[in-house]
Amino acid sequence: MPQSAEQPVRRTYRPVPFTRVALSDEFWGPRLKVNREVTIPTQYQQLKATGRIDAFRLTWQPGKEPKPHFFWDSDVAKWIEAASYSLAAHPDPALDALLDEVIALIAAAQQPDGYLNVYFTVVEPSERFTDLRDAHELYCAGHLMEAAAAHFQATGKRTLLDPICRYADLIGLVFGRGEGQKRGYCGHEEIELALVKLYHATGQKRYLEMSRYFVDERGQQPHYFDQETQILNGQDKVHHFEDYFTRTMRKQFDYRYNQSHLPVREQTVVGGHAVRAMYLFSGMADLAGETGDPALLKACESLWENLHTRRMYLTGGIGDSRTNEGFTGDYELPNETAYAETCAAVGLVFWNHRMLQLTCDGRYADIMERALYNGVISGISLDGTRFFYENPLASLGNHHRQGWFDCACCPPNVARLLASLGEYIYSTSDSDLAVHLYVQSQADVTVAGQAVRISQQTRYPWEGEVSLCLEMEAPKAFGLKLRLPGWCRSASLAINGQPVDLAGKMALGYVCLERTWQPGDQVRLWLPMPVERFYANPAARQDVGSVALQRGPIVYCIEQVDQVAPVNRIVLPRSATLSAQFEPGLLEGVALVKAEGAELSESGFQAALYRNTPPQLRPCRLTAVPYYAWDNRQPGQMRVWIPEIDG
Amino acid sequence: MPQSAEQPVRRTYRPVPFTRVALSDEFWGPRLKVNREVTIPTQYQQLKATGRIDAFRLTWQPGKEPKPHFFWDSDVAKWIEAASYSLAAHPDPALDALLDEVIALIAAAQQPDGYLNVYFTVVEPSERFTDLRDAHELYCAGHLMEAAAAHFQATGKRTLLDPICRYADLIGLVFGRGEGQKRGYCGHEEIELALVKLYHATGQKRYLEMSRYFVDERGQQPHYFDQETQILNGQDKVHHFEDYFTRTMRKQFDYRYNQSHLPVREQTVVGGHAVRAMYLFSGMADLAGETGDPALLKACESLWENLHTRRMYLTGGIGDSRTNEGFTGDYELPNETAYAETCAAVGLVFWNHRMLQLTCDGRYADIMERALYNGVISGISLDGTRFFYENPLASLGNHHRQGWFDCACCPPNVARLLASLGEYIYSTSDSDLAVHLYVQSQADVTVAGQAVRISQQTRYPWEGEVSLCLEMEAPKAFGLKLRLPGWCRSASLAINGQPVDLAGKMALGYVCLERTWQPGDQVRLWLPMPVERFYANPAARQDVGSVALQRGPIVYCIEQVDQVAPVNRIVLPRSATLSAQFEPGLLEGVALVKAEGAELSESGFQAALYRNTPPQLRPCRLTAVPYYAWDNRQPGQMRVWIPEIDG
Repeated sequence: MPQSAEQPVRRTYRPVPFTRVALSDEFWGPRLKVNREVTIPTQYQQLKATGRIDAFRLTWQPGKEPKPHFFWDSDVAKWIEAASYSLAAHPDPALDALLDEVIALIAAAQQPDGYLNVYFTVVEPSERFTDLRDAHELYCAGHLMEAAAAHFQATGKRTLLDPICRYADLIGLVFGRGEGQKRGYCGHEEIELALVKLYHATGQKRYLEMSRYFVDERGQQPHYFDQETQILNGQDKVHHFEDYFTRTMRKQFDYRYNQSHLPVREQTVVGGHAVRAMYLFSGMADLAGETGDPALLKACESLWENLHTRRMYLTGGIGDSRTNEGFTGDYELPNETAYAETCAAVGLVFWNHRMLQLTCDGRYADIMERALYNGVISGISLDGTRFFYENPLASLGNHHRQGWFDCACCPPNVARLLASLGEYIYSTSDSDLAVHLYVQSQADVTVAGQAVRISQQTRYPWEGEVSLCLEMEAPKAFGLKLRLPGWCRSASLAINGQPVDLAGKMALGYVCLERTWQPGDQVRLWLPMPVERFYANPAARQDVGSVALQRGPIVYCIEQVDQVAPVNRIVLPRSATLSAQFEPGLLEGVALVKAEGAELSESGFQAALYRNTPPQLRPCRLTAVPYYAWDNRQPGQMRVWIPEIDG
Repeated sequence: MPQSAEQPVRRTYRPVPFTRVALSDEFWGPRLKVNREVTIPTQYQQLKATGRIDAFRLTWQPGKEPKPHFFWDSDVAKWIEAASYSLAAHPDPALDALLDEVIALIAAAQQPDGYLNVYFTVVEPSERFTDLRDAHELYCAGHLMEAAAAHFQATGKRTLLDPICRYADLIGLVFGRGEGQKRGYCGHEEIELALVKLYHATGQKRYLEMSRYFVDERGQQPHYFDQETQILNGQDKVHHFEDYFTRTMRKQFDYRYNQSHLPVREQTVVGGHAVRAMYLFSGMADLAGETGDPALLKACESLWENLHTRRMYLTGGIGDSRTNEGFTGDYELPNETAYAETCAAVGLVFWNHRMLQLTCDGRYADIMERALYNGVISGISLDGTRFFYENPLASLGNHHRQGWFDCACCPPNVARLLASLGEYIYSTSDSDLAVHLYVQSQADVTVAGQAVRISQQTRYPWEGEVSLCLEMEAPKAFGLKLRLPGWCRSASLAINGQPVDLAGKMALGYVCLERTWQPGDQVRLWLPMPVERFYANPAARQDVGSVALQRGPIVYCIEQVDQVAPVNRIVLPRSATLSAQFEPGLLEGVALVKAEGAELSESGFQAALYRNTPPQLRPCRLTAVPYYAWDNRQPGQMRVWIPEIDG
């Protein structure tokens, strides 16, 4: 268990901002470059071509196409956030100017009272704040807040921040527990974490209080959405997704879907729509860190335990079902039909990154890493132009990435995460510098009041050796915490060439090196990286009898293009040796995993589908590639879990 | 392959009518009694309570509830068919009178021109024959024809037959290739086989010709349903299921769904809606038998091969997908989500029974038997009051039989099959008497012009020993063909105590005993019935690594109520001994299968869902029950396919 939450625990670590981290590695570096040079420009074109940008001109009129959707503001906002991160790390006057242009449009769309939402300004102007349950109104506001904070931090400009603060202040007037205020909250969480960012960007504590209100009000009785429904029905109206929910879910709408079935402190099961859940829990973790609220931390921990032990794919994908885009039950982890939305994996990174700052517990970093190297980046093609919404763990070859979606949440979500990836590597506390991820990079940090430059040299995730170097003006005593990844069984470490016994130095998955560091000190870490077989709890019935391959943080799959036998007839003998080999020319450089597998033969089954003797086996070479890289070559069957046989 | 269809093959065998067969066995006997005493009366109450009977009074008016559905006539018709079969075998004046009452209502609902359909008389009277694709109009007519033929054969009364012939004659005027006729056919096949029954009941060859027209016209170009759509759209109307199809199937309506994508002789893949397919193929087999049309037989054989080798569950369930209530692809056989509609298994019996009459090929009898003992009777509860629409091969314990359905096709379909079960046991040709099923019974047949009484004594399906006795007035030369079931590996046989060498006596799965039979001759057949393990073609990926248990014709499952370990964590070692034991007090008498299985332990998985060592195994007793009997006790997990391990 993470540390007990009996006592208030305030956030003790702060991420080192990505603006202070220069990546130079061969894994993330090229991805960030593609993100900057291809993905972000391409997504702007998509936003432009689909009318999402020009919607802010507020020129839509009934009958005109395209009609703005109430999601749209958020797509633009997430792009602004991604572009701002990119700009902050890589000055680019053209992008800066483009951002100014888009932001000017948005600012001009603000109403005199501060309101800022395209759909409820031009399509249903009389329906403002009447369908919080379905219409994503505060969700869009939250994304605008994240965008505004990012743009301000990247450029120092207040061109978006100021209007968005005005909008936030309007929201603060409309919602709350005071006389004449609506005691509402959004059906799609997002504004909770966004208000904390706005608080950090502005220093205005009222935004933190608003976040706390939205988190705490959720799920209280009388239920706000019940009241909203009554009011709508009384006007012969229904919620915007009433039809979708009742048809798709084939039953009455269930408040578990948006995590409002109970007050958040009473929730112990990760349920409902997965992205909604991750954004809420991220906001809860933010508040727990800011306020030290032990009950909120405890709720986060219980939810996390449930997710970690029962509801997460090996890839860090979460939310098994298309029907609710979310969770259906403990150990419900179908592979072919796994929904595992890209946004949900991104949200899982957000939440675990926040939890990590509270306690520096490596279990959070493990999940963050698992999602990043697998279920997040599977969501984007290697060339940066196509995206998965769903990330199944098995496919018949008919699931492919697309350039865009009507509901386009995933593409800019990946883009904003990649553009800010540097932020996930290091944290500092008053006395410690923690390294969470091994990525070749250099960071300028302040620890114990001293400027320190830490650099990593490594070929992670393909090799497990990491050299760290500390540079500073003068010797300084502080703790250097290095994460020993959960997948690693036998790490070793040396300081300036002297082996260090790790016994007694471990804390929650980190080795803590407390000493007076000298300028130029070198730490070498060896994280042996054999290919390992992973097995699921047998309660996850879909994986019984099967094995998955993982090497370091990378989960593997077998893809048809690499096999001699049909993927779905390949089995892996338990004794088969698994070897890894780096192939620089394949899939932009990957370590392949090879083994002598076996093929279940169809021989003898031509005359009948069933018979009383098992299929024969014949040897066949099996080649596995990183899961994230699948569907970048010719289409075909794919699977992560491979049936395992004795022998 | 069944025998080649190069030459015309007319039907060579005729079923011995169930009115000539008296069952006295302990398996089917009690089922038929429950069907007669509980199911048929209960279904009448359901038909009455839901308004289906009174709908024939034609008193419905707009706004009144219940509004007749265009399915309804068929539900009543199938009940009449079942009740008539029951009446024929067991005189029952009250049932006879009840039938008269219902039939009088139906006859009174006939329109002056012969038309007879509730929905298109009272709900949409102007839309008669305008939506053959979706509105089940000729399907309902077909079921009325089957009912009329059954009632006439059971009672000799023409009270339903005459009106239905008038209706059939109207249909014959409306549809056809002549001037002014519609070149249409029904979107739900049924009338094709029904017209053959009407031909047999009346001797009127025009009904056979109408059946041939409907079969041959199907799938011709220009496509009738395209034309129908154009006409409807021109009147600002759509087909009745347009919305359902476009929403549920998420694409344009595909004519494969109703087997009209190609002329029937060109079809080689069993696709689309499973019940529709079975009814069509039954009609095709009927016509092939009546006309000797080699192309039609060849088409049936190709379709059958496809079904048998690629698209049938071990239980005889067919149609894997809920979306189209049908087939999706070769080897697509998911277990938890198997649709396997009860009606489709019933239709599979119909089709194979017809194919069997053409060639006396035991492979057809094997499938007929497989469906009867498994996927058909799983559709009805042991007490005869509740029904499965879907028959999955695995369940988490949340799928249960229901008393009735809005679309109530399955309950009366099981009832009519059970009520006529005697008809599936024996056939005669000019020179042979064939025994297809082993059921303790006595039948009075005519073979080679001689009256013969054949009786079977057996405890089949629980024991594989069968004693047959022939009684007749004088010695007679004819062939006695006894089916050696496909599941049986080593049959033996004796005549009057003298062992008979089967070598040289086998033909298409039947042993042919050609001799001059003496009154009182005894044939004993031993069909050893060990519990066997069955394996699927590994192309059926859902079953890879798993084994199913079968004993004789009975497919087994493990149900939670009998296990000490959770069903979904039970595995079966390949070397485990499987023993069978009859339990008279359980589930109305079943042979249980027991084995030393193993339980995959969750031990060590509490802290994380995945780990690098496989789950531990601990021994656990496994008890399997016949699949058909599941969900008759306390609810829980169930599965047919059990993971198999070495050892």
